[in-house]
Amino acid sequence: MDDDDLRRGKPTAHKAFGEANAILAGDALLTMAFDAAAESGSAAVLRELARAAGVAGMVGGQVIDLESENKQLTLEQLRRVHAYKTGALIRVSVRVGALLGGAGDSALEALTRFGESIGLAFQIADDILDVVGEEAALGKRTGSDANKHKSTYPQLVGLERARQLAGEAVDEAVAALAGFGPEADVFRALARFIVERDK
Amino acid sequence: MDDDDLRRGKPTAHKAFGEANAILAGDALLTMAFDAAAESGSAAVLRELARAAGVAGMVGGQVIDLESENKQLTLEQLRRVHAYKTGALIRVSVRVGALLGGAGDSALEALTRFGESIGLAFQIADDILDVVGEEAALGKRTGSDANKHKSTYPQLVGLERARQLAGEAVDEAVAALAGFGPEADVFRALARFIVERDK
Repeated sequence: MDDDDLRRGKPTAHKAFGEANAILAGDALLTMAFDAAAESGSAAVLRELARAAGVAGMVGGQVIDLESENKQLTLEQLRRVHAYKTGALIRVSVRVGALLGGAGDSALEALTRFGESIGLAFQIADDILDVVGEEAALGKRTGSDANKHKSTYPQLVGLERARQLAGEAVDEAVAALAGFGPEADVFRALARFIVERDK
Repeated sequence: MDDDDLRRGKPTAHKAFGEANAILAGDALLTMAFDAAAESGSAAVLRELARAAGVAGMVGGQVIDLESENKQLTLEQLRRVHAYKTGALIRVSVRVGALLGGAGDSALEALTRFGESIGLAFQIADDILDVVGEEAALGKRTGSDANKHKSTYPQLVGLERARQLAGEAVDEAVAALAGFGPEADVFRALARFIVERDK
């Protein structure tokens, strides 16, 4: 939808296979995700996933995002776009693992906060990389947000403050895991990786 | 994907709201379908539905259909396109109702044959209406199949033979219901309506 030519250094699907096939590949993958999740045998998990993917999540966020092009958003509005567009799916990914793993209420709540925090950190880092990242490492064009006059964290609060906010989100994510021992170390490393990555 | 301007007398979504929103509406509705189906509490139903919608069903059929434009298909190939593109979803709709209603093996098998037969009848009738239908009643342009050099039943076997095949498919659908009493009358009426409709 951003009509970019590249993703991860390769031509985007609509460039390589045409628009119709790209749309259908999206429909097919969305459908396969529900098929795979249904293997869990849990209809409750399916519902959480559907809500995070649909109008109250990813799809709704993408609509707001498209409508926001060429408009100046406030920090609060930007946060909301991202909470829908990417945050909901990251959050539900963590929750579904916790639910299927039999997590109790307090563990589920902690992991939900972890998911929300890394979702926010991911998005701020993504905005920063679009400004300072190397095209070769990212495998996509940089500067595309600015070219489309999209509101981003660096544009709204400056690069330095954006880095600070990303760091705070990671700290919150790690703090949410305080009740867990070394079994959560991979999650702690994941949270740090999100802001340290260069692609 | 056929880039038609009208559906049921109204502008198509991509004409009225733009391509991006039309794609997203499709993603949202696909997702809502899984959310609604998950209300059944049955992960098995979800899996049947996902398979009928995905690469082995609707999406796969649409891909084959697009690849078949400007090619001359055999009757057997045409039947396969439709079995995927529209047949799988009609079939699964009947099966899911039967499964959730607690149908036994033989009732499920009979209803599955019913679903497959009305799916075939529907598609032949749809091809016929694209040739002989009134645009006003249909609410969409007629002749669009011929304009795109698409293989259809009337084009492959002639209008008269196509009508005969549609009638035979309806007869098979009604025959599949032989084991049911008056409780299946609405299904018998539905089968006949498919070929008698003028829109």
